[in-house]
Amino acid sequence: MLMPDAAPLDRLADFPAIPEGWAYLDTAATAQKPAPVVDAITRAYGETYATVHRGVYQRSADMTLAFEAARRRVAGFIGAPSPDEVVFVRGATEGINLVAQCWAGTQLKAGDRILLSMLEHHSNIVPWQMVAERNGLGLDVVPLTADGRIDLDAMERMIRPEHKLVALAHVSNVLGSVLDAERAVRIAHAAGAKILLDGCQAVPRLAVDVAALGCDFYVFSGHKLYGPTGIGVLWGRSELLDAMPPYQGGGSMIDKVSFARTTYAPPPGRFEAGTPHIVGVLGLHAAIDYVEGIGLDAIHVHETALVARARDALGRINSVRLLGPDDSAGIVSFVVEGVHPHDVATILDEGRVAIRAGHHCAQPLMEALGVEATARASFGVYNGPADIDALVRGVERVSRIFG
Amino acid sequence: MLMPDAAPLDRLADFPAIPEGWAYLDTAATAQKPAPVVDAITRAYGETYATVHRGVYQRSADMTLAFEAARRRVAGFIGAPSPDEVVFVRGATEGINLVAQCWAGTQLKAGDRILLSMLEHHSNIVPWQMVAERNGLGLDVVPLTADGRIDLDAMERMIRPEHKLVALAHVSNVLGSVLDAERAVRIAHAAGAKILLDGCQAVPRLAVDVAALGCDFYVFSGHKLYGPTGIGVLWGRSELLDAMPPYQGGGSMIDKVSFARTTYAPPPGRFEAGTPHIVGVLGLHAAIDYVEGIGLDAIHVHETALVARARDALGRINSVRLLGPDDSAGIVSFVVEGVHPHDVATILDEGRVAIRAGHHCAQPLMEALGVEATARASFGVYNGPADIDALVRGVERVSRIFG
Repeated sequence: MLMPDAAPLDRLADFPAIPEGWAYLDTAATAQKPAPVVDAITRAYGETYATVHRGVYQRSADMTLAFEAARRRVAGFIGAPSPDEVVFVRGATEGINLVAQCWAGTQLKAGDRILLSMLEHHSNIVPWQMVAERNGLGLDVVPLTADGRIDLDAMERMIRPEHKLVALAHVSNVLGSVLDAERAVRIAHAAGAKILLDGCQAVPRLAVDVAALGCDFYVFSGHKLYGPTGIGVLWGRSELLDAMPPYQGGGSMIDKVSFARTTYAPPPGRFEAGTPHIVGVLGLHAAIDYVEGIGLDAIHVHETALVARARDALGRINSVRLLGPDDSAGIVSFVVEGVHPHDVATILDEGRVAIRAGHHCAQPLMEALGVEATARASFGVYNGPADIDALVRGVERVSRIFG
Repeated sequence: MLMPDAAPLDRLADFPAIPEGWAYLDTAATAQKPAPVVDAITRAYGETYATVHRGVYQRSADMTLAFEAARRRVAGFIGAPSPDEVVFVRGATEGINLVAQCWAGTQLKAGDRILLSMLEHHSNIVPWQMVAERNGLGLDVVPLTADGRIDLDAMERMIRPEHKLVALAHVSNVLGSVLDAERAVRIAHAAGAKILLDGCQAVPRLAVDVAALGCDFYVFSGHKLYGPTGIGVLWGRSELLDAMPPYQGGGSMIDKVSFARTTYAPPPGRFEAGTPHIVGVLGLHAAIDYVEGIGLDAIHVHETALVARARDALGRINSVRLLGPDDSAGIVSFVVEGVHPHDVATILDEGRVAIRAGHHCAQPLMEALGVEATARASFGVYNGPADIDALVRGVERVSRIFG
């Protein structure tokens, strides 16, 4: 195993919003932004701003080129065969809702079933519940292994021909558990099901190649990838997107509109009604450039070292119960016996350590873990051993106060 | 009438992306951003960034306060009785789709009808067509007066008890025609219909008070109001929002999630699944501060003077056909006989005048006007008489080249 301190990324100086001595450990909620991303956004609003896809004048034509270049950049980043398979959405939540509405809502029929897991984020549960209720679909839930992974052996036993879709987190937002996505895809496809992966926590931490994984849909949010708020990506296989009806009606998603008959544009335009979040798309491009400049493999090694350091030190505190597997990706959830996680987070905040406490939008997982909430520390390229040490000192203080 | 040059706003210096000598006349597509808006966005990403609604630590609590302060600011800006009636969406397009899906899609039944007008933007046509097709609703279309206004006399004759919703542009994005919104509301309500106003082009140009207007739903986009891309507002009466089912499923819109039964949060959270466009909301706040600092009445006077100057000068060119009413708000559409509007825009661009040419996402209106496309100049607080003069010189040049 790598030494925890081996080749720290030392990227803190790139992040203007992180002051000296503040341990920001809530990257799984949202990542801080590096200067190149902030600069790209400032430049787009303050120097080159124009609308896209419609303007005849040069400034707008240039902005359209930049917008579509970002789409190609996203496609390259996740290994999508074509940029036309990249749909810009508000975030992963909207991406999943789009698939629920336009794919499950139209392709599945009463009696069909969708297979989820016990550790899913609400955004990968509630949209399926909503479409299930409307269309008479069933939902089934894959349990977890003892160390908090999606139990693929159980999934293999559970899956039946009625399961037309499997929707799983690539990396758990609570436990950091990494799905064996290739195996999950094989199991789903062997049963004739499509598979959607929620890549929110994976894309900032692992190199992702949707073509190599063989999945059918993939979603992620820009703001967790060091990019702007309000922008995310739905990737879908072109033959699936082609067969889907429009999502929202409006400008840009149409071919021809009349009150007698309206026809629709091909993907991705069909799913992108209205003026898009132009600057969000440009900021996402800058964010992808930034993380690829470091390299996802280097980021993964870095975060793995931080996780190891954190689990090792927290594990030595008697009152701490660590959750999730030891090889979790960039995310460590824990509870301090007898102390509500909110109190843990509040005391840590006094020591300038920012973690999240709560159900992390994963209430079914909380129930499965037998807790109401957890404390969660999650890491990014700006964190180093000193942040972990500050976290551990803070938890030791919690333990003393409540001990 | 005010002299065209009376008290010009002279705000050009506030807009870093407009270089000296560039006449940006495409504000109806999207407005340029004043420095205070760019600065607010840069500061949010580069100094104070954190997630909202979930973090226990101080930075996130502060961001939540800023986020909800923006919601109150929006409510005050449009005269909404309560900030809980303000739903943040991607833009006006999404706001209309939300009402189509969650209100019309659940409250209306086969045989019910929706009343639109001939000058609507595709975003106020296609969502209704989509829900009409799904739910067996009928659509009717109010014609225009000879000078391009929604014909409210005709509307009064057409409306019937079957009409459960009227959806109209407050200001036409093509012609600049201003709806007599109070009268439209009275007609709709007298027939028992709800009324939605598309305020995209109104909010940047007129003081809007939804309570005084008495309408039921109001939508607008931030980026046309000198604010960020990817953010907009749906306002709805609380009793209507309360009765609507959720929109997208995910985090923040739930009360409690389990695989057995999920319950939902009250509005506005019920309609805001997932991490919101945090910085877009803060930027929108700054944009509202900016336009209210000038004053909507002053902006309206300013744009009215620019419209008068443009219509007067363009009207003197023999080959120009002016469209829309003389008292249009900030938007002038025209055609040059025998010249495709794209060629008009291209030649104007050579002279550093940016206008839009096309169908402006209003194909039914184009058909009603008997044209394939128009050239459209639209104004903002940064424009002055020199921009109008540059426009007129450019159109004169077009006329000479093709004459």
